Amino acid sequence: MKSLKKYFAEGLGTFALVLFGCGAATIASVSQSGPEGIGLLGISLAFGLSVVVMAYTIGPISGCHINPAISIAMLAAGKLSVKDTVGYVIAQCIGAIIAAAVLYLLASGSAGFSMPEWGLGSNGWGDGYLGEYNMTSALVAEFVFTFLFLLVIFGTTAKNASPAMAGLAIGISLALIHMVAIPITGTSVNPARSLGPALFAGGAAMSQLWLFIVAPIAGGLCAALVRNVFLDD
Amino acid sequence: MKSLKKYFAEGLGTFALVLFGCGAATIASVSQSGPEGIGLLGISLAFGLSVVVMAYTIGPISGCHINPAISIAMLAAGKLSVKDTVGYVIAQCIGAIIAAAVLYLLASGSAGFSMPEWGLGSNGWGDGYLGEYNMTSALVAEFVFTFLFLLVIFGTTAKNASPAMAGLAIGISLALIHMVAIPITGTSVNPARSLGPALFAGGAAMSQLWLFIVAPIAGGLCAALVRNVFLDD
Amino acid sequence: MKSLKKYFAEGLGTFALVLFGCGAATIASVSQSGPEGIGLLGISLAFGLSVVVMAYTIGPISGCHINPAISIAMLAAGKLSVKDTVGYVIAQCIGAIIAAAVLYLLASGSAGFSMPEWGLGSNGWGDGYLGEYNMTSALVAEFVFTFLFLLVIFGTTAKNASPAMAGLAIGISLALIHMVAIPITGTSVNPARSLGPALFAGGAAMSQLWLFIVAPIAGGLCAALVRNVFLDD
Amino acid sequence: MKSLKKYFAEGLGTFALVLFGCGAATIASVSQSGPEGIGLLGISLAFGLSVVVMAYTIGPISGCHINPAISIAMLAAGKLSVKDTVGYVIAQCIGAIIAAAVLYLLASGSAGFSMPEWGLGSNGWGDGYLGEYNMTSALVAEFVFTFLFLLVIFGTTAKNASPAMAGLAIGISLALIHMVAIPITGTSVNPARSLGPALFAGGAAMSQLWLFIVAPIAGGLCAALVRNVFLDD
Repeated sequence: MKSLKKYFAEGLGTFALVLFGCGAATIASVSQSGPEGIGLLGISLAFGLSVVVMAYTIGPISGCHINPAISIAMLAAGKLSVKDTVGYVIAQCIGAIIAAAVLYLLASGSAGFSMPEWGLGSNGWGDGYLGEYNMTSALVAEFVFTFLFLLVIFGTTAKNASPAMAGLAIGISLALIHMVAIPITGTSVNPARSLGPALFAGGAAMSQLWLFIVAPIAGGLCAALVRNVFLDD
Repeated sequence: MKSLKKYFAEGLGTFALVLFGCGAATIASVSQSGPEGIGLLGISLAFGLSVVVMAYTIGPISGCHINPAISIAMLAAGKLSVKDTVGYVIAQCIGAIIAAAVLYLLASGSAGFSMPEWGLGSNGWGDGYLGEYNMTSALVAEFVFTFLFLLVIFGTTAKNASPAMAGLAIGISLALIHMVAIPITGTSVNPARSLGPALFAGGAAMSQLWLFIVAPIAGGLCAALVRNVFLDD
Repeated sequence: MKSLKKYFAEGLGTFALVLFGCGAATIASVSQSGPEGIGLLGISLAFGLSVVVMAYTIGPISGCHINPAISIAMLAAGKLSVKDTVGYVIAQCIGAIIAAAVLYLLASGSAGFSMPEWGLGSNGWGDGYLGEYNMTSALVAEFVFTFLFLLVIFGTTAKNASPAMAGLAIGISLALIHMVAIPITGTSVNPARSLGPALFAGGAAMSQLWLFIVAPIAGGLCAALVRNVFLDD
Repeated sequence: MKSLKKYFAEGLGTFALVLFGCGAATIASVSQSGPEGIGLLGISLAFGLSVVVMAYTIGPISGCHINPAISIAMLAAGKLSVKDTVGYVIAQCIGAIIAAAVLYLLASGSAGFSMPEWGLGSNGWGDGYLGEYNMTSALVAEFVFTFLFLLVIFGTTAKNASPAMAGLAIGISLALIHMVAIPITGTSVNPARSLGPALFAGGAAMSQLWLFIVAPIAGGLCAALVRNVFLDD
């Protein structure tokens, strides 16, 4: 029962992350307001601040991972059991898929809606995707930024850190990652966040999904390995 | 006397929310600066940060609901008496109406002012309203986002949460809701916030007001029912 | 000596407020980046976040008023001595004037600089000033927003409030005030902030200066009178 | 070993500052999104919020200077040993150089990339550089803003201040400095942050590098000298 509450919390948190983050990108891009309405800064803040909000909402229950790359890195760091890792990841994916479904329902109610390539805030790269960066840039960006993201998570939740500020710092770091990487990949660093929209967008979003599973998990695992270099606990 | 202080606080808080939030939208839209002056992100932050400010200003006195959907959900959750719920809702509506009146006074002092359809930051949907979303999207958005908003409120104010950060997290979640839902309905999730401007704008803003009373209250009540699924107290 | 430290702190804080706030408006408006570079939201945040920063820098020393309307309201509320009120206000005005001088020096180093009407972020109203609002709107805006600003200050620093969050809430409320009132008056709510740039800009900025002394002080005094309506201490 | 952890932390923090700050400027400027994508406000927040995040990540380990001007001012204030000052500055420079290298790698993966004059977010001034300010404005801006930055750092970390909020206030002050000074010099106030991009951009970025070493260090040293005027410890 206590496990179910934790899994429900992870599902709810990932639902909120995808609904707010991809929603800020999607609703703007299919409405008359145009993508300029909220801009790169607004979309970046939408993703980052969702983590801030959820850290204080579900953090005391589940730790607020809402990201399979984080849960798997926590498993590698010996801070999450195998059973909970499986439960967390499944709940995160379900939450992300439901959020994408709600987003699809909302977006389809706008005048003249049709699903664009890489719709609903899907991640991708290459010709036709935002800044048109190549796959090397996409791989490096997703790997390096997830690595850095996890070091921030390990550092802000270490013994001597300020526990009340950790949620704020972690969420802001996700906003910063988006401020740099949106033109490259749309910014994932989170396999569940990529999965949800890709299932509804199909096409290139599905065929490029693998990178947003592999690179974030690899980056997170590396961070789990090197964290003892600069942290004490 | 103690009750009156609480009701005064709720009225003041809702006054500030509508004056800042609808003011950011209104003053920009009737001035030379144009709606681009502050943008969707600015309007979203104006609503959300008003809640942050008021949470630390009147929170210790009344709990800072400043939203009938929250007070009614708190009644359903057994955290507010019937008498105080009535007092809170009346005070919130009065505060919102006074704010809309001040806004109307300020706006009418600009060169060449005339009240536009859905003026003073009124909520609405359909032909001519921002992204021109249909009524289904409007209903789903107002219901789902108020539901999520109340879960954030219940979660961040639960026993194990960080009390000092609750106001910040709740306000930010309202900003996030606006970042997604402004093109759909202008974003209400708060019947009092919709009532004030509608009284002065008239027309479609009045005839569509019902949705911004029904959907937020329904969403809030559902959140009150399911909160025990993932919260302990 | 202890008094001098307090006065120095108030001077430094007002220096920072005017340098950052008016600087964000000024440097953008005389450079190629154009006023759109940072926008209404950016200028609003520059003023508000300056107060946040200074609240945690000099708050423990002087209370971080950095605004004669606040110091005079604190005198009326019995929280500041006459001697310190005089010292604070003089220091605030000196800090604001030095900031305007530094700003003038910086701005004059740009290619093709010439001082515009209402330059260096001066406050004003009427024909040619931003949204071209009339004097009634200017008076109402400056009075109502200073009144509300002071209520936020009294509320967030009351006995039951969260002391660590007061600086954040107060600064954010100043940002919100700017988000609404910049098109009307450029937003003062602070006689010292209006004085500094006006001395260098001259013209209409000087002849309209009286309103930005009278209205904020009147608004602040009213807040000092009514604060007992909703606050306990 | 404990020293190495501190130096590693300083390197990591400076890496993050340059990757996020210069990355927000660079990726936008070489992509289709154009510099408007994130804007002056977004770039300012990227630099400032990087400091916020790193303050809570590595602050408990090294104090999170991530800036040679800060470490040298701390040496002058008697708060850092000569040995650690050398170690910190070297680590900061290495972190900044690696960040610029990663940024170069990412940027070069975009369609039709070529390194612009003052590329990768380099600092500079004069003809062709943003607002085209002269060298006097550049010197004054870098000196005054580093001076003010250090006073904020000394004030927010003094005995009576709120330790949990210091990182937030210091980071926000860096964002404010950028909001004003980007059109003038791109904003350095940090020799390491200027060194990294300049090494890869070459040309004017290298020949103007001296100012971004001299002026910030001079401003920081002055702050260390006058801090006793208004601080007790």
